[in-house]
Amino acid sequence: MQHSSKVLENAIREIAKLPGIGQRTALRLALHMLRQEKEDIHQFTEAVNHLVDDVIYCSKCHNISDTEICQICADPKRDASLLCIVEDIRDVLAIEQTSQYRGLYHVLGGLISPMEGIGPTDLNISDLVGRIQGDEVKEVIFALSSNMEGDTTTFYIYKKLEGLEMNVSTIARGLAVGDALEYADEITLGRSLQQRVPYEQSLKS
Amino acid sequence: MQHSSKVLENAIREIAKLPGIGQRTALRLALHMLRQEKEDIHQFTEAVNHLVDDVIYCSKCHNISDTEICQICADPKRDASLLCIVEDIRDVLAIEQTSQYRGLYHVLGGLISPMEGIGPTDLNISDLVGRIQGDEVKEVIFALSSNMEGDTTTFYIYKKLEGLEMNVSTIARGLAVGDALEYADEITLGRSLQQRVPYEQSLKS
Repeated sequence: MQHSSKVLENAIREIAKLPGIGQRTALRLALHMLRQEKEDIHQFTEAVNHLVDDVIYCSKCHNISDTEICQICADPKRDASLLCIVEDIRDVLAIEQTSQYRGLYHVLGGLISPMEGIGPTDLNISDLVGRIQGDEVKEVIFALSSNMEGDTTTFYIYKKLEGLEMNVSTIARGLAVGDALEYADEITLGRSLQQRVPYEQSLKS
Repeated sequence: MQHSSKVLENAIREIAKLPGIGQRTALRLALHMLRQEKEDIHQFTEAVNHLVDDVIYCSKCHNISDTEICQICADPKRDASLLCIVEDIRDVLAIEQTSQYRGLYHVLGGLISPMEGIGPTDLNISDLVGRIQGDEVKEVIFALSSNMEGDTTTFYIYKKLEGLEMNVSTIARGLAVGDALEYADEITLGRSLQQRVPYEQSLKS
C-alpha cells in the first residue's frame, strides 16, 4: 500500500492511538478535519494541549482542577458538612450531572483490589481521615461501585472512620428508574425490597 | 452541573465536536489523554495541526498530497497507461490496500447527483478529459459506487471520452469473497452470473 501523503499517514497513526479508534475511524476523522476550518482544528489541538499541560489535581479532594483547590471545594455555596467518597473523576461528573448533590467530594483514585495489587496505601485514603477529622464533615456518603472491590473499600474506610462522630451512608441500590421489575436481577430486586423507602419520601425527588 | 476544571470542560467540548464522538466518549478520551505522557499527546496534536496546515491536493489526480504532484503520480514504477477513476480519497486508500493495482488515479471529489445539486462542473471532470488526451492512458477503469449517482457519473464521463482511442472498463460487480450465495441479493447475483469469468482466470488473484 502506498500513501499519497506522509502527513496524512502520520496523522492517522497518531489518531488511531486513541482508545477505541481504529485505522478506519482515524482516517474518517482525519478527512473530516481536512474539511473543517483550520482555526477550528487549531482550537481543538490547543484545548487538548492545554488539558495535558495545565490540569492539576485538587490538593483537598483529588478531583481534576485548574487551581490548587478545585472550584467545587472552593465554592462557599456547597455544603461542607457532606462528603461523598467516589472512585474517580468520572464519578464526580456523573453525580454532578444529577444536580441532586450539593456537598463536597473525595476522589480515592481507585478501589482496593488484592487481585490487581492495589492496596489502601495506593489510594487517597490516609488524607481522607485527616480531612474528616479537621473539617466540619457531618455525613460521609459512600458512592462506590456495587462490586467486590467497591464493598471492600467501603468497609475498609468505614472501619477507619469508627469512633469519629458522624453519619455514614451509602447510595441506595435498587431498580433503575424506568426498569421493568420482571427483568431485574434477583440480588438487586432483593436489595431494593430490603431497603424500601416510605412512599411519601419516594415522591420527593 | 459544576465542572471542577474549565480546562477539562473546554477540552471535552472540543473533542465532542468530532463526528461520532459524544460527550461521554469525549470525557473518556480526555481522561485517557491525561493518563498519557505529555510528549505523546503533543505529538498527536502536532500531527493534526500539520495535517490541516500542510496537506494540499495533487494538481494532477486531486488526491491528497504533501507536494504539488503526489507520491503516486510521481512514482515512475506506477503504470501510467492505467487510470482509475474514483469518487474520493478514501477510495484511493481502499484500492491501494488491495495491492492489486499499479496504475494511476483520478479523484473526482464527488458524484453527479441532481438530488443534491451536484453537477459535472462541481467535479474534477473537465481536467480529466484533458489529462487523458495529453497522457499515455490506454485504459480507463471506473471504480465508482454501484448506485444511481455512480452509474450516472460513469455514463457521463464515458460519453465525454467517446472518440478517444482507449479501453474503458468498470470494476466487477458480484458476490463478495466469502459470501454465501443464498444470502446475496438478486441484482448482485444476477450481475455476477451475467459477468461470469473463465474458471482459469478466477484462479489468478
